[in-house]
Amino acid sequence: MPVVSITLLPGYDPDTQHRMVNRVANAVRSVIATPEAGTTVFINEVSTYRRDGKVFSGGRAPHPVASEVVKSFLQAMQERNLTLAQSFLHPDFAMCFPGGVHMRTLSELIGWAQQRYSAISKNYEQFEESWQGDATVVFCHGTLQGTWLQGEPFEGIRFIDRVEVRDGLITRQDVWNDLAEHRKA
Amino acid sequence: MPVVSITLLPGYDPDTQHRMVNRVANAVRSVIATPEAGTTVFINEVSTYRRDGKVFSGGRAPHPVASEVVKSFLQAMQERNLTLAQSFLHPDFAMCFPGGVHMRTLSELIGWAQQRYSAISKNYEQFEESWQGDATVVFCHGTLQGTWLQGEPFEGIRFIDRVEVRDGLITRQDVWNDLAEHRKA
Amino acid sequence: MPVVSITLLPGYDPDTQHRMVNRVANAVRSVIATPEAGTTVFINEVSTYRRDGKVFSGGRAPHPVASEVVKSFLQAMQERNLTLAQSFLHPDFAMCFPGGVHMRTLSELIGWAQQRYSAISKNYEQFEESWQGDATVVFCHGTLQGTWLQGEPFEGIRFIDRVEVRDGLITRQDVWNDLAEHRKA
Amino acid sequence: MPVVSITLLPGYDPDTQHRMVNRVANAVRSVIATPEAGTTVFINEVSTYRRDGKVFSGGRAPHPVASEVVKSFLQAMQERNLTLAQSFLHPDFAMCFPGGVHMRTLSELIGWAQQRYSAISKNYEQFEESWQGDATVVFCHGTLQGTWLQGEPFEGIRFIDRVEVRDGLITRQDVWNDLAEHRKA
Amino acid sequence: MPVVSITLLPGYDPDTQHRMVNRVANAVRSVIATPEAGTTVFINEVSTYRRDGKVFSGGRAPHPVASEVVKSFLQAMQERNLTLAQSFLHPDFAMCFPGGVHMRTLSELIGWAQQRYSAISKNYEQFEESWQGDATVVFCHGTLQGTWLQGEPFEGIRFIDRVEVRDGLITRQDVWNDLAEHRKA
Amino acid sequence: MPVVSITLLPGYDPDTQHRMVNRVANAVRSVIATPEAGTTVFINEVSTYRRDGKVFSGGRAPHPVASEVVKSFLQAMQERNLTLAQSFLHPDFAMCFPGGVHMRTLSELIGWAQQRYSAISKNYEQFEESWQGDATVVFCHGTLQGTWLQGEPFEGIRFIDRVEVRDGLITRQDVWNDLAEHRKA
Repeated sequence: MPVVSITLLPGYDPDTQHRMVNRVANAVRSVIATPEAGTTVFINEVSTYRRDGKVFSGGRAPHPVASEVVKSFLQAMQERNLTLAQSFLHPDFAMCFPGGVHMRTLSELIGWAQQRYSAISKNYEQFEESWQGDATVVFCHGTLQGTWLQGEPFEGIRFIDRVEVRDGLITRQDVWNDLAEHRKA
Repeated sequence: MPVVSITLLPGYDPDTQHRMVNRVANAVRSVIATPEAGTTVFINEVSTYRRDGKVFSGGRAPHPVASEVVKSFLQAMQERNLTLAQSFLHPDFAMCFPGGVHMRTLSELIGWAQQRYSAISKNYEQFEESWQGDATVVFCHGTLQGTWLQGEPFEGIRFIDRVEVRDGLITRQDVWNDLAEHRKA
Repeated sequence: MPVVSITLLPGYDPDTQHRMVNRVANAVRSVIATPEAGTTVFINEVSTYRRDGKVFSGGRAPHPVASEVVKSFLQAMQERNLTLAQSFLHPDFAMCFPGGVHMRTLSELIGWAQQRYSAISKNYEQFEESWQGDATVVFCHGTLQGTWLQGEPFEGIRFIDRVEVRDGLITRQDVWNDLAEHRKA
Repeated sequence: MPVVSITLLPGYDPDTQHRMVNRVANAVRSVIATPEAGTTVFINEVSTYRRDGKVFSGGRAPHPVASEVVKSFLQAMQERNLTLAQSFLHPDFAMCFPGGVHMRTLSELIGWAQQRYSAISKNYEQFEESWQGDATVVFCHGTLQGTWLQGEPFEGIRFIDRVEVRDGLITRQDVWNDLAEHRKA
Repeated sequence: MPVVSITLLPGYDPDTQHRMVNRVANAVRSVIATPEAGTTVFINEVSTYRRDGKVFSGGRAPHPVASEVVKSFLQAMQERNLTLAQSFLHPDFAMCFPGGVHMRTLSELIGWAQQRYSAISKNYEQFEESWQGDATVVFCHGTLQGTWLQGEPFEGIRFIDRVEVRDGLITRQDVWNDLAEHRKA
Repeated sequence: MPVVSITLLPGYDPDTQHRMVNRVANAVRSVIATPEAGTTVFINEVSTYRRDGKVFSGGRAPHPVASEVVKSFLQAMQERNLTLAQSFLHPDFAMCFPGGVHMRTLSELIGWAQQRYSAISKNYEQFEESWQGDATVVFCHGTLQGTWLQGEPFEGIRFIDRVEVRDGLITRQDVWNDLAEHRKA
């Protein structure tokens, strides 16, 4: 046990279906101590479905994978492709960076960062998703490497990002890192 | 759509069942853009269940709620009740604190902290869970308040913890915060 | 075929459950030419149910049987128990009687009838229900017997009533009969 | 709630499937006060089905829609296309018209009608079906318009037909109307 | 895979339910090469069930275990408790013994056996059931031990019985053994 | 009742599916006294299935029909096609023949038989299968005909074979017959 049957309208591609059975299995196993061997999840496609007085001819679109959205955004930022990066952001996007610095635009962020280091890139250790219904929050942590303003290199400095994704767009990014722990006074 | 039927052995308390339907709904809605109104999840209790050649008389135990485990641990630490705090830890527990400081015991942590501040407590904004099958990772963020070693108070300093929970025990804690951003040089 | 599984929250009494499996079987058999022997309907009670972001603890109330509501109303009218009869009526109740006479109150009806016959009662042959979602329309037909204004008795005069029931209350009654066919000129 | 799963052999066209989910939803909602938003019905096609010791390769044929059968019959009658009209009738067909006039053949009916009006047609307000298992009873009501024998026109005269349909053929028609209420003495 | 859901009316005792899930798992695994670990069978009790136009209030009785019926019969025969043995037999009971000897009554059998040995008993190695719908055929094999008519003992002589059971009663017994192979000429 | 739903990965041919619904129906009916008319079994093909942490793309292969394997083996033996006969045998194959003669190879068997009769063939009355999970045991009985060593013909001599089949290969054959009952001393 448990045996989970997910009834869907037909038309979802295998990737979406695999993602769904895997996530549902994880959700179930977060609640009870059932091993993988005893956890069964399958998808059943119906031929006709009616709810709320309507017969539906197709299901709602799959979401893009939130952690892929975040990866693409972070990659675009690292490559300073602000047009591409902006395309992943919700109009209400807001961010908060170390020291409690609140910003709303990518150009603000670029300006602020230029006062802290002259170059930076991220090594990602892990992307982790928290599925919260209307939003998926992506956490990624790893280490930073780059060059201080004075020209000295740094590396291996810990960071973590918390990124909210709603309907495939990023609504909020919060960043913590150890740069201040390592910065020369 | 979707309609999710979870078949369980009988005996789970309502809290566990509610947690399961809520989490499964969230997992499903993280994959496809279905509104709450169109997301149906129910639990069906079987009277007899057989898998792997065995008839099972009861299901596996529910896990404690991982974010509750983490809250209890953090509360015990704040109250310096190390015996209670230790009871939430897995024997393989490890932690990493700002600056990349790796430690394995709570007494190490206490010693290290004493060199950074004389008092500290946490205001939690949010606990968020990432369900990963064998582990649930709990993220909590908020602000720190306390007293610097020199006696000056501080407050509103951002932090985030990442805590791995396996089988109800904490196996790893990673901490980031902005203390170094605010510490007087 | 077909096999119909109805998943309900627990708590419905056997009468309601029997009514549901019988009606669903009839609905299915109105669409395809399947014999009773090949028509299976069962009710499955879930232990937990979640939709629209809410976990429900009990199902919606059963409706009273619409044809029983109509029978009770007609019986009360025949017994001139207008208070009881009124209790079955929706505030928006309207009626239309032979000749296209539109009325809204029972006292109007009584007054109108007194100009047509001095006594009347109904022999019911059949009550039939049309299930239309928000409303159930009850048709009953049979024969009238009574006394003309001039004192002569009549009997065996055909009638049919069409009565709309919503949420257990009658919203409309339409009546046809052959009284005018038989009335002495 | 409720969630209704209808298991069928494959091969039914979408119209038949839509009709089935709609009717089953109506049947369910006639029993309990559940709103459309909380009423889910879907059809599941099996790949193999066995009952009564036999594996079935296809389901029973869909019935024609009973109210469409009745409409077609009434239309053919109005156009005096008796051959077509007859094709909708069961060999045991019987009818009863105002005044309690029992007839069995369409030519009888034509003869009888010719003594009552010289022309007639129907404005339909509503067709309503009562699903009763082996039979579907169709009720249609509306108004009559036409010409009296003396040449005067009439219109807006209320009527209701009750028509029994079994296996796609009409077995009985009962008619009530207000013609006698309006007929000049 | 596979996942088998058996829907039953409530009221079957756990033994019956266990027997059913075990046998269904065996039936499924006789068809496809699925390991026990991947074979899931569960029983779901409905609260209301309707088929063939009837709502059923309880399921059909469980059969006695056919191999237990056969064991009890053979034990009664060995103890020469013919009244008890007879109670397991269907009125149409027939048997066929080595050499093609057809008999219908237990007393015939006793008479025939007395010409072959003066005492006999059976060591059972295995009871095996063949589930055939209206009948279950029980095969049991093992060895015979006893005393020849001349007084010499014998043992370890192979036998097999084939016994048909219908509705809990034995309708036929066929016996093969190696007595003739061992009998002194 | 009962209604059995078998959920399978897609891809099984109709023969395999028919065999499965028939055998499962038999297994169910061996446990409770339900008539064929009340026994419903269907197969539902899923679009995605996950168990034990893996998403499966296809089901396990169907087994060959065990009684067909046994028939083919016995036919090959009768035709003295030992190469073909051997192809049906598991490497651990063992057999036991009347008189308790244990052998492991077909050539041993041929040698032993030549001392008992000069020709033999089987008339099969019935093949019956006992489904036991990892093995299916096939029982076949009927009559032997052939020629004694001395040249005299025989016929109508009863036999029964018990043959174990695992993963499509025969692991054991046990044979009983009445030859010794009929053999001239």
